[in-house]
Amino acid sequence: MDQIIMQPIGIIHSHYKEAKNIPIQGIFNTDIEAWIELKDEFANGLKSLDKFSHAIILYHFHKSQRVEIEGKPFLEQKKHGIFSIRSPHRPNHIGFSIVKIKRIKGNKIYFTGVDVLDGTPLLDIKPYVKYFDSRDNVVCGWIEKHFKDGNIPGNTIISL
Amino acid sequence: MDQIIMQPIGIIHSHYKEAKNIPIQGIFNTDIEAWIELKDEFANGLKSLDKFSHAIILYHFHKSQRVEIEGKPFLEQKKHGIFSIRSPHRPNHIGFSIVKIKRIKGNKIYFTGVDVLDGTPLLDIKPYVKYFDSRDNVVCGWIEKHFKDGNIPGNTIISL
Repeated sequence: MDQIIMQPIGIIHSHYKEAKNIPIQGIFNTDIEAWIELKDEFANGLKSLDKFSHAIILYHFHKSQRVEIEGKPFLEQKKHGIFSIRSPHRPNHIGFSIVKIKRIKGNKIYFTGVDVLDGTPLLDIKPYVKYFDSRDNVVCGWIEKHFKDGNIPGNTIISL
Repeated sequence: MDQIIMQPIGIIHSHYKEAKNIPIQGIFNTDIEAWIELKDEFANGLKSLDKFSHAIILYHFHKSQRVEIEGKPFLEQKKHGIFSIRSPHRPNHIGFSIVKIKRIKGNKIYFTGVDVLDGTPLLDIKPYVKYFDSRDNVVCGWIEKHFKDGNIPGNTIISL
């Protein structure tokens, strides 16, 4: 199959300079602000996005130098298939986060809910649409036990 | 900035042979089954995924030959910035869908909720985790009016 060549559309700036300080998911991190700096040529692509409360961002796990077909997730020591965990050490190294948009100015988006390393190359931004992207009756396999009885797991050490 | 080179990890097979028959989002399409055929080398990456009800799939909009910084969405004729719509004609041409897993056999995942063309190159699979991927208090900009009073828009013609 053919190669697919992508180019960063911008850079994500955050307070996380190394992986071990990053929360397991940005949803649990509502105070800290980060920002996206889009290449100027894409700034017009942000039109209308300021009327959305949330965005999906796709980015490149640029610090991961390996692929693990089975790996350990952030939440436990047991290995799982890479497609049932959110580890960066995955084929194509694409990261996915949902962030809360605070404001947009020119080619910059300021947001909270960040769980991304400073300097991460951005691949895409999509509007988060509750009618498409929220699901009911969801079962989350090995993850369920970590959120049992309302528990929210804290930061864990991520090995990059 | 550097180029990022990706390779398909498999192929998505569906009943949609051309773009104009595809529903606007697979969530409104619960009966029709599709399947992913992973390259054999990635089959072990599926371990544990059968215990999840839903998966996120990322794929390449391989039939789109252009990038529109502002474009028309499937739901209306008004132009919006590409990052506030889900059009395939976006920088890096990455598609994103949430699908319902029906069963997994070897290197194949059978699922419903498909809105993807037959033969689409697959880039990644992630578990859909309600604790990370569902949001409350979501506002969806220009999209809201199309879902007013419980309305669900039907199929529309997608130009590829």
